[in-house]
Amino acid sequence: MLRDKLRAFADERDWNQFHTPKNLAMALMVETAELLEHFQWLTPDQSSDLTEKSKAAVKEELADVLLYLVRIADKLGVDLLDAALLKIEKNALKYPADIVRGSAKKYNEY
Amino acid sequence: MLRDKLRAFADERDWNQFHTPKNLAMALMVETAELLEHFQWLTPDQSSDLTEKSKAAVKEELADVLLYLVRIADKLGVDLLDAALLKIEKNALKYPADIVRGSAKKYNEY
Amino acid sequence: MLRDKLRAFADERDWNQFHTPKNLAMALMVETAELLEHFQWLTPDQSSDLTEKSKAAVKEELADVLLYLVRIADKLGVDLLDAALLKIEKNALKYPADIVRGSAKKYNEY
Amino acid sequence: MLRDKLRAFADERDWNQFHTPKNLAMALMVETAELLEHFQWLTPDQSSDLTEKSKAAVKEELADVLLYLVRIADKLGVDLLDAALLKIEKNALKYPADIVRGSAKKYNEY
Repeated sequence: MLRDKLRAFADERDWNQFHTPKNLAMALMVETAELLEHFQWLTPDQSSDLTEKSKAAVKEELADVLLYLVRIADKLGVDLLDAALLKIEKNALKYPADIVRGSAKKYNEY
Repeated sequence: MLRDKLRAFADERDWNQFHTPKNLAMALMVETAELLEHFQWLTPDQSSDLTEKSKAAVKEELADVLLYLVRIADKLGVDLLDAALLKIEKNALKYPADIVRGSAKKYNEY
Repeated sequence: MLRDKLRAFADERDWNQFHTPKNLAMALMVETAELLEHFQWLTPDQSSDLTEKSKAAVKEELADVLLYLVRIADKLGVDLLDAALLKIEKNALKYPADIVRGSAKKYNEY
Repeated sequence: MLRDKLRAFADERDWNQFHTPKNLAMALMVETAELLEHFQWLTPDQSSDLTEKSKAAVKEELADVLLYLVRIADKLGVDLLDAALLKIEKNALKYPADIVRGSAKKYNEY
């Protein structure tokens, strides 16, 4: 399980001293920006059709984001999967399909 | 499964037109920043000891990050769990425990 | 003037095709994250007392952020200095000194 | 001058205790993400042709980014304009116009 592997990884390196939620949120942000960087000058279409080299790099960035996300959730005592399922239900109420269909407006603009 | 729920969610709302990897990377970034915002003025200690109200809000932001992460991985055809496990192995080689113990320096600074 | 230098820089390289406000906002974000990266594992005190090497690198990141900020403002036809002065006035009304003194709470929490 | 206005603003509110470079870098990031949010679902063309309402909001976000940028530079003792001019010179050497013309590749890909 990712959570336990990451706990062991940090324990073995004595990195818990650095892994406050504040610092982990920053690290998560930095990894997310490294992902974003791959797309910054691409057209939307190009972003859907990456080269193999670019896709391999993007895959690693996605992994980095997930690893820090799992780690910060663990440090905060949050069950990520439970949180995600609850949020999908909440979003379904916030964005009723028949009202928002085909629109990217935010809910408070309807 | 989160991936399938998010596919159905987007299909029902005709949102695939907006869900290019480029746009999803931006949305992932925006959600990550909303998470970061909760920690910006806190001391490291305070970030480890959130109020109940703050923790509930943070839990939702973590969920938002995961949902966009799962969604962009799906659009790119990346298996997130596989990517994460490979990255942990790679990191273990990059940061040998006996060398990096107790240090936050980057690997290229050793 | 920075704005004009950046216009010439992009013109000479035929980069206007990439410099949509959307792409420039992404580039600005990536540079901001590179700045943030320097601080992610530091204590607040350490962040106020950078090594010379780190400070030189941070100075370059600050420059990158300013350059993209000036560039996106130009592309959007926004006078940055005017916008900043107006925002300071607005913030003075939003955060009256005698009410918010010594507190990092957001205005809507008072 | 922006720098001095922001110093006075923080002094009057006893906010220097929160304004470590680490925290200011986080705040800068949060504001940059609020700017990015305006563009996340827009096509590149739409991002060049904002509605008046959207443009007014974007102008405020640009101001917020500049204010935090000036503030963090002040706290770090960096002269922003000087840093920016030096960086433009450095970029001119890094990206020779006749080599990079019309390309968004990174310099290390040539």
